[in-house]
Amino acid sequence: MRARKIIIDTDPGHDDAFAILFALGSPEELEVVGITTVAGNVPLPLTSLNALKVIELAKRPDVPVYAGCAAPMVRTLLTAEHIHGETGIDGAELPHPVVPLQREHAVNFMVRTLMEAPEGEITICTLGPMTNVAMAMTMEPRIIPRIREVVLMGGGFFEGGNTTPAAEFNIFVDPHAAHKVFASGVPVTMAGIDCTYTAQMTPEWLQDLRNTGSHAAVQAANLADFFRQYGSHKFPTEARPIHDACVTGYLLAPEIYDQRMCHVTVDISSPVTIGMTVVDWWGVTGNDKNCNVLRRVDADAFFALMLERIGSLP
Amino acid sequence: MRARKIIIDTDPGHDDAFAILFALGSPEELEVVGITTVAGNVPLPLTSLNALKVIELAKRPDVPVYAGCAAPMVRTLLTAEHIHGETGIDGAELPHPVVPLQREHAVNFMVRTLMEAPEGEITICTLGPMTNVAMAMTMEPRIIPRIREVVLMGGGFFEGGNTTPAAEFNIFVDPHAAHKVFASGVPVTMAGIDCTYTAQMTPEWLQDLRNTGSHAAVQAANLADFFRQYGSHKFPTEARPIHDACVTGYLLAPEIYDQRMCHVTVDISSPVTIGMTVVDWWGVTGNDKNCNVLRRVDADAFFALMLERIGSLP
Amino acid sequence: MRARKIIIDTDPGHDDAFAILFALGSPEELEVVGITTVAGNVPLPLTSLNALKVIELAKRPDVPVYAGCAAPMVRTLLTAEHIHGETGIDGAELPHPVVPLQREHAVNFMVRTLMEAPEGEITICTLGPMTNVAMAMTMEPRIIPRIREVVLMGGGFFEGGNTTPAAEFNIFVDPHAAHKVFASGVPVTMAGIDCTYTAQMTPEWLQDLRNTGSHAAVQAANLADFFRQYGSHKFPTEARPIHDACVTGYLLAPEIYDQRMCHVTVDISSPVTIGMTVVDWWGVTGNDKNCNVLRRVDADAFFALMLERIGSLP
Amino acid sequence: MRARKIIIDTDPGHDDAFAILFALGSPEELEVVGITTVAGNVPLPLTSLNALKVIELAKRPDVPVYAGCAAPMVRTLLTAEHIHGETGIDGAELPHPVVPLQREHAVNFMVRTLMEAPEGEITICTLGPMTNVAMAMTMEPRIIPRIREVVLMGGGFFEGGNTTPAAEFNIFVDPHAAHKVFASGVPVTMAGIDCTYTAQMTPEWLQDLRNTGSHAAVQAANLADFFRQYGSHKFPTEARPIHDACVTGYLLAPEIYDQRMCHVTVDISSPVTIGMTVVDWWGVTGNDKNCNVLRRVDADAFFALMLERIGSLP
Repeated sequence: MRARKIIIDTDPGHDDAFAILFALGSPEELEVVGITTVAGNVPLPLTSLNALKVIELAKRPDVPVYAGCAAPMVRTLLTAEHIHGETGIDGAELPHPVVPLQREHAVNFMVRTLMEAPEGEITICTLGPMTNVAMAMTMEPRIIPRIREVVLMGGGFFEGGNTTPAAEFNIFVDPHAAHKVFASGVPVTMAGIDCTYTAQMTPEWLQDLRNTGSHAAVQAANLADFFRQYGSHKFPTEARPIHDACVTGYLLAPEIYDQRMCHVTVDISSPVTIGMTVVDWWGVTGNDKNCNVLRRVDADAFFALMLERIGSLP
Repeated sequence: MRARKIIIDTDPGHDDAFAILFALGSPEELEVVGITTVAGNVPLPLTSLNALKVIELAKRPDVPVYAGCAAPMVRTLLTAEHIHGETGIDGAELPHPVVPLQREHAVNFMVRTLMEAPEGEITICTLGPMTNVAMAMTMEPRIIPRIREVVLMGGGFFEGGNTTPAAEFNIFVDPHAAHKVFASGVPVTMAGIDCTYTAQMTPEWLQDLRNTGSHAAVQAANLADFFRQYGSHKFPTEARPIHDACVTGYLLAPEIYDQRMCHVTVDISSPVTIGMTVVDWWGVTGNDKNCNVLRRVDADAFFALMLERIGSLP
Repeated sequence: MRARKIIIDTDPGHDDAFAILFALGSPEELEVVGITTVAGNVPLPLTSLNALKVIELAKRPDVPVYAGCAAPMVRTLLTAEHIHGETGIDGAELPHPVVPLQREHAVNFMVRTLMEAPEGEITICTLGPMTNVAMAMTMEPRIIPRIREVVLMGGGFFEGGNTTPAAEFNIFVDPHAAHKVFASGVPVTMAGIDCTYTAQMTPEWLQDLRNTGSHAAVQAANLADFFRQYGSHKFPTEARPIHDACVTGYLLAPEIYDQRMCHVTVDISSPVTIGMTVVDWWGVTGNDKNCNVLRRVDADAFFALMLERIGSLP
Repeated sequence: MRARKIIIDTDPGHDDAFAILFALGSPEELEVVGITTVAGNVPLPLTSLNALKVIELAKRPDVPVYAGCAAPMVRTLLTAEHIHGETGIDGAELPHPVVPLQREHAVNFMVRTLMEAPEGEITICTLGPMTNVAMAMTMEPRIIPRIREVVLMGGGFFEGGNTTPAAEFNIFVDPHAAHKVFASGVPVTMAGIDCTYTAQMTPEWLQDLRNTGSHAAVQAANLADFFRQYGSHKFPTEARPIHDACVTGYLLAPEIYDQRMCHVTVDISSPVTIGMTVVDWWGVTGNDKNCNVLRRVDADAFFALMLERIGSLP
């Protein structure tokens, strides 16, 4: 079987870095045709720089990185330096990138790639606000039926939100973009915090990661040590979720996830719920089931797989 | 210690009947100064009739019943015959009431009782849409600081809703009323479905209830048998929640509930989340903690207590 | 022909005083069966006091005054002392009231009066926030088909709002109440600012009013002199609208108004348009025409009539 | 003085054609650096074709035409064939275009042109939904301070809307795009229907247009004859507004317009007012005055100018 072609749309971000390394460590299954960046955890210049650093860390400068939108479609930008530090990836010494950003805009890259590839070949993985994807759909609606699947980290329902009581960060930052993608008709798989909270990194696993001897793995562990500082009010132990990596895990091993097809829409109306992914888990609305909602992951299987794959990097 | 004075505001409803019988079986701790009815599970004439039947069943015709509002404050009425049957309490043969409804309107009764009683003496328990309480607060805002506490069955957060994906029935029917009560400054304790789903009646417990030999208990068990038919898509076993009874349980034994003070507001803006109780469980908004949110109850302790109390009725 | 029976629901307020005096000066056509007060221009104790003062001024202590709701149904109260002064009727020396307020709540008075009167006999005129009427409709929905008509001063469309860009004061203060009344099915006639701006009092007319020799008229002119101070940014001359009086004018001489049946709804969702009366003037929605919208009044005829009627008071 | 450089963003549309011809007939004052098309009155393939036909009619195949977005940013597309006919420009025989569309996407053209031109040189005129401009601002926020001015036909306030009671067509079709542009900080001038209704074409003026002997003018008159059929329920005479042309008129002769700086925002929250341009005409909100609102135009001066300019075309 040929590797599945994916575009990773991202705002690194510590957990974004894990998701990317996890994918780059799985070349048999996943072909990263490009990385596109977006403003989110930190502003666009930093997320773009960080994406370049991550491919450099993985010794994969051949993966092209395209800078995308510097702000959401309608709202003003909100960032999360209190979680990710000023650089977006505080905590590790990542190599200075050698290759530059591509000149093409991420949105144009998405449109071009989707129009040139066979229908249903390209999967888009969004690890940050969904601005670039929604923008590409608006620039060229003909890409919509050509997308194989959008797999996103974002949203949540049974855990509420992590930014407002009801909204998760990625969706809250650009709720209009998310609303558009969920309503587009494209197959969507959502790894919200309901799912990502069930896969928590432990200090022991990070030690295992260091023990792989992979340089990339060691730096990833350093990133994780910084990232784990946040969340002590919420998580009673030292274990912490590594959200975005759940997207890569799903692409590699969907069978280790509990999932259900549901109608999902994003609220864009209420001051108290804007950015909430409203999941019709029990099918009470009768609306079409437009989203595969990931609810839980087998954490042991997930971390074993990620250990193997990130550990396989140089 | 003197019994705590409560007004039970209700739309019986099977679980309302349990909550009322539970309270009437606890005369040492709870003095029911009046029962007020509201449209909700079924229209007002039926909820009023059913309330009279329940006090008749408990041989407590001395408890006055006042009919309240026949429709919500702003929206049109939604009822739930698909759950409670056409009568609102299908499944049991309850005695025909002997005493009539009081002539005073429930809202006027609330206002009068609160203005005449010492400040902080009266607790209001709402088991249905919160129309009557919000109406009383609008009729006479001076009652607001006189209410000891509003303890409500309604809302939910971590379980989503049971009527729309985001909204529970009692709040969804009159979101504006609920919004007003939560924002009023009155101490509010919320037994939402997050809590009520953790106390599920089993067939075994219902047999225990029948075995008490109490006529009221046997009829309650008959009601439960009807009510338990609903929910098989959601609850994998034969056990079912008995929502409203959690309010009475809390008044009698608050120590068996997991609870947290949080800011709670009710959405009244969005077509997809209207009627949702947005709980700031993690304190991210900085808003005042206006609600004691019940999250779990010790089901064994709860059912043991309810068995004893309903079993003590004639 | 017998006089038309009206309840005047009001928050005096200078222009409210004109509307009341105009009605009391027209006993052949209008029978004021009661005046009900509401919080609005100033808090309830002042609007109630002011209503009593106005009937005293008119030498009509037989007209009963009932105090109503001290705050809106859902929102918190907004008042308008910057327009009406601290008392609500700054500018005149009105007599201290001799008769007290009735003990019955305005909402209960409305319900009782409507249930006792023949169907279709009672007209309700609202000159302030529509809280009391909407509360009465919620307390007892059976009054709805018994109301002959609700004639209100409030809203506007072509002139925008006078409190926010889109909302007029009376509707903005309690948009939920207004929404309910417009949606109730009761015949509604709306004198919004589109209409009231077309009837502007001039200094000359006030001199005519003083010249009638009526004591009430002289005091009304004094009220008007205070009220006219406001609005110089909006109205280029010394002429000013006398909003609430347009309601009385319509009851007496509907033929001097330009009017059109339209669908009207009140926005209760958007932070920028909440409280706006959205008038489907051109019939584009296909919604039922639930409101008789007054667009213009023949100012000469209107002021001639009001001069005669207020001038006829003692 | 050098000609002012403009990009015309348009969805022709009869009145769009007038606006374009009016601009192309004014080469001393206006340099049309490009025409960009958007879905609106009819779908994108037709608006693009129609734009090409209009430049062909004007014998100006040197003006490049770029196709833009085929659908709004968030909502689904609404079109207006009932006004403009199936082609979007029913009523005239326009020449088949000789030059093709440019290959570059309209949004990319806008971004590139603005980034390459000196700051403050380029004015964008939008005659349809504002999708392309808002998309360009999202693709590359650095263009925002480089735009000299956005002059738009859209919105309205004192006349209400023409599509819903509160919303005008261009804004209603893509309210999120309009919201973004108004909030962007760019100088915005709005020719809403409050303004455009004050410039109504008469049959006499159309005869004058035909009498100029210009072929383009004759075809424009033919277009106008079709367009004038719509609106008989609203406009009592045979005169009709020619909305988009007011944008060109403003660029050429701003002194013939009544205008006021106001805060303007677009509602994106309420089901009854979404797409409304909420104009703070009286300055009651204290919000920044972000928009030059055109309220009236001197119709005689406007039509005299347009006659001269369109009549000057071949």
